[in-house]
Amino acid sequence: MIPLPRGFRFAGVSCGIKSRANAKDVTLIISDQPCVAAGVYTTNQIVAAPVVISRSRTPSDRIRGIVVNSGNANACTGTRGHSDAIEMTRLAAQAVSHQTPLSDDQFVVMSTGVIGRFLPMEKVRDGIQRAAIALGSTESHFLDACDGIMTTDAFRKIAYRTAYCGMGEHTLVGMCKGAGMIGPKMATMLAIVVTDVPLEPLDAQRILQAAANRSFNCISVEGHMSTNDSLVLLAKTPSEEEPALNEMDQAIFAADLTELCIELAKKIPDDGEGATHLIEIRIQGSNNDADADAIARSIALSNLVKTAITGGDPNWGRIVSAAGYAGVPISPSRTALKINEIPIFDKGEPLPFDAKVVSQSIKSQKLTLIELQVGLGPGTAVHWTTDLNAEYVRFNSEYTT
Amino acid sequence: MIPLPRGFRFAGVSCGIKSRANAKDVTLIISDQPCVAAGVYTTNQIVAAPVVISRSRTPSDRIRGIVVNSGNANACTGTRGHSDAIEMTRLAAQAVSHQTPLSDDQFVVMSTGVIGRFLPMEKVRDGIQRAAIALGSTESHFLDACDGIMTTDAFRKIAYRTAYCGMGEHTLVGMCKGAGMIGPKMATMLAIVVTDVPLEPLDAQRILQAAANRSFNCISVEGHMSTNDSLVLLAKTPSEEEPALNEMDQAIFAADLTELCIELAKKIPDDGEGATHLIEIRIQGSNNDADADAIARSIALSNLVKTAITGGDPNWGRIVSAAGYAGVPISPSRTALKINEIPIFDKGEPLPFDAKVVSQSIKSQKLTLIELQVGLGPGTAVHWTTDLNAEYVRFNSEYTT
Repeated sequence: MIPLPRGFRFAGVSCGIKSRANAKDVTLIISDQPCVAAGVYTTNQIVAAPVVISRSRTPSDRIRGIVVNSGNANACTGTRGHSDAIEMTRLAAQAVSHQTPLSDDQFVVMSTGVIGRFLPMEKVRDGIQRAAIALGSTESHFLDACDGIMTTDAFRKIAYRTAYCGMGEHTLVGMCKGAGMIGPKMATMLAIVVTDVPLEPLDAQRILQAAANRSFNCISVEGHMSTNDSLVLLAKTPSEEEPALNEMDQAIFAADLTELCIELAKKIPDDGEGATHLIEIRIQGSNNDADADAIARSIALSNLVKTAITGGDPNWGRIVSAAGYAGVPISPSRTALKINEIPIFDKGEPLPFDAKVVSQSIKSQKLTLIELQVGLGPGTAVHWTTDLNAEYVRFNSEYTT
Repeated sequence: MIPLPRGFRFAGVSCGIKSRANAKDVTLIISDQPCVAAGVYTTNQIVAAPVVISRSRTPSDRIRGIVVNSGNANACTGTRGHSDAIEMTRLAAQAVSHQTPLSDDQFVVMSTGVIGRFLPMEKVRDGIQRAAIALGSTESHFLDACDGIMTTDAFRKIAYRTAYCGMGEHTLVGMCKGAGMIGPKMATMLAIVVTDVPLEPLDAQRILQAAANRSFNCISVEGHMSTNDSLVLLAKTPSEEEPALNEMDQAIFAADLTELCIELAKKIPDDGEGATHLIEIRIQGSNNDADADAIARSIALSNLVKTAITGGDPNWGRIVSAAGYAGVPISPSRTALKINEIPIFDKGEPLPFDAKVVSQSIKSQKLTLIELQVGLGPGTAVHWTTDLNAEYVRFNSEYTT
């Protein structure tokens, strides 16, 4: 049973943007009261229209909801795409206005799917109207909303936590979609976290950015930074009855949010298109955390490392050499490597190890653990990525045609 | 008929480093007189022992030859690997000494193959001795030498030119080996160019570096920078009878050398393991050439771009978005894209085009031409890479085991 924060309603419906019959492709998440929204977005210069709109509207404490479509990214679509993204928020505002009319700028918008095609706005209009009618606050409504943001995902990506902070027990629930075009920075395609924790908008933004840096910014599938990556947090607007969290409670909430984001983020490479391994890369001993991050990223993005893991091949020179071209200092003579906790390389020299044992340990489990010590300082980082196999290639050769 | 410069002899023999029977794995190239050698090497911090040795010995005007083994990279092999690389040059010096004894530091050394294994020095010793006996100056000797530097290459990579400079007609001949672990900087695994043009060592070094920047530094297969990349030029030591080229003749030679290096370099992605397309990426309109280079590299290294080409899929959003995260400025609203000369995207908007025609043009030819205008300034760059297909993945999953 997924716990849901009070005051939010969810819907996911099918309107025919995706070609597969009855595939859900519009999601609506509504806050019954004006709420706080914070957002972290792609840093790609080629940025989709919905990102431009949402980025200009967050952080805020007067947001009423998020409208999402999947199956079409509304990216590289020029001025018409920009109008269409605004129109989506206008349609959402109209569809859920009852007593008081809502304004389009009280909505955040997200799109995901193929780049460079105009949105079929008649279908989108129909979808948003039907989503507004379908809104509800049960687990099944939440799952429909998860389905509406998915593209090539093989499974739903959901995580939740209870946070003990402020006036008592609070709920955090998150969904994300991933699969392809993930990483190297801000690797989510789309992620939404909803909580009933009361936060000031700027605190929400700061805490969300920090959580993203430890989670969605530490994953990759193939290192292609998307035009549409968006992570949005909805939280309660503080009130007299329920004031904003104080600093200590914010720290508790931040820890819970970071954990939740890591749990969500890891599901993305775990579901990398056709991936058979989730690879966890732990770097220690660089001059600082940013350097460790660069080394982890260089290893995570190496097709040669990824294909070696696919084949259960302890071809560890590929790992060490990827660290060597990361563009930050390492100490080759103090570098040490373990694969699945088996020491492979130390002080610049290969260690005697049983290649069959290492190979078997890679082949027999979904997770492969790479631990690299680079011998300089206190810097650490953890990244997660997928292996690379023929299924990924087949999949991505055939995506649009 | 491959023209060969006078004064050099070549050999390639099999000594059992490679497991396949009779596969050539030792190459020797000898200059009958002390010659000029210049070298450009990997910038990876994890650098193979032979690179450390050769880098310290070039540029020079007293080199007598190059000794190469394939099948073992002698990388990540610590102090023992360092001694083994020096020993290879000592063995080469001994094996070709006749009247006057040669010194080990008159030899350049290169290795290529699997990382992290010690060289089988008994086999290497035997190979070098037999190569010295086999030396000769016919085309068949040259082809043996080409075979001795290959690893997973599907075909020999050879190019030659006649340069009209200095005292008349001169010959340039080059060989390289590539296949995997190519790029993003200094993408050759091994390349050797031999010429009878007389050059001062520092001129040779400057001209070679410039040629590398336009050729071997502009190719990639999977973007994994190797520990062993080495490009070495052997040229004539100037003498009273044949003085060093003057500045104007150097410019002629530099143009010929650059052309030859581009021809050689393109053969590497053309033979990317399992590749079915050679992708040429032309960037125009960035602020400067370095920015254009960064954009070309970002596109060339995108698995999503590469798999789209594999599938003949005009999924052009992947190309434009890869330009957007290259880390250098572009003007999204003035960006324009052509694939195989067909306009696809202009001024931030998709153009109407027949996806079937584009797809057919990709599928029907080995070369795919991507032309991207980014709308800012005079910067240009050209890169070459491969597509990414299931065969590459199969190949690199199974390389060492």
